[in-house]
Amino acid sequence: MATGETQIDTGSLRVTRWEIEPGGAIPLHRHEHEYVVVPLVDATLHVVEADGSEAAVELRVGRSYARPAGARHTVANRGSAPLAFVEIERLS
Amino acid sequence: MATGETQIDTGSLRVTRWEIEPGGAIPLHRHEHEYVVVPLVDATLHVVEADGSEAAVELRVGRSYARPAGARHTVANRGSAPLAFVEIERLS
Repeated sequence: MATGETQIDTGSLRVTRWEIEPGGAIPLHRHEHEYVVVPLVDATLHVVEADGSEAAVELRVGRSYARPAGARHTVANRGSAPLAFVEIERLS
Repeated sequence: MATGETQIDTGSLRVTRWEIEPGGAIPLHRHEHEYVVVPLVDATLHVVEADGSEAAVELRVGRSYARPAGARHTVANRGSAPLAFVEIERLS
């Protein structure tokens, strides 16, 4: 199971805290906006693109990464501990 | 002492990881852009405004907050442990 809590929406920035339980995933979604991910744990995030290709992303606490708008994927936690990160979207 | 590491600059978003040692501070600065802070530790951040007024901000891991452009302040760590957070600025 995955849960997303919207912490902030200023109209120009939106911040969501995501938590994914072991075995859980954020279902297929498309990123309409450029975004930054700030990991809150050390973990491996499995990203499954809409075309079926996969990548394992190594998350490290506080080591951020950015992605452009347009990504369309599922993100899964195949580990044994809960996985958490904060997503910041640039809305406009 | 305080150190800031620019992790990302996409031209529209800039991400900086800040670490402030006990007794250290980020010197007086003005925020030219709207920004979000994602705390990486539980701690108290002392914010000293340019007019001398002070506020104690309780940081909790992953509990983000946003501020508009225009703030002008010093931020200090008066605790006994290093303090770390990620700042995301909306550049344009």
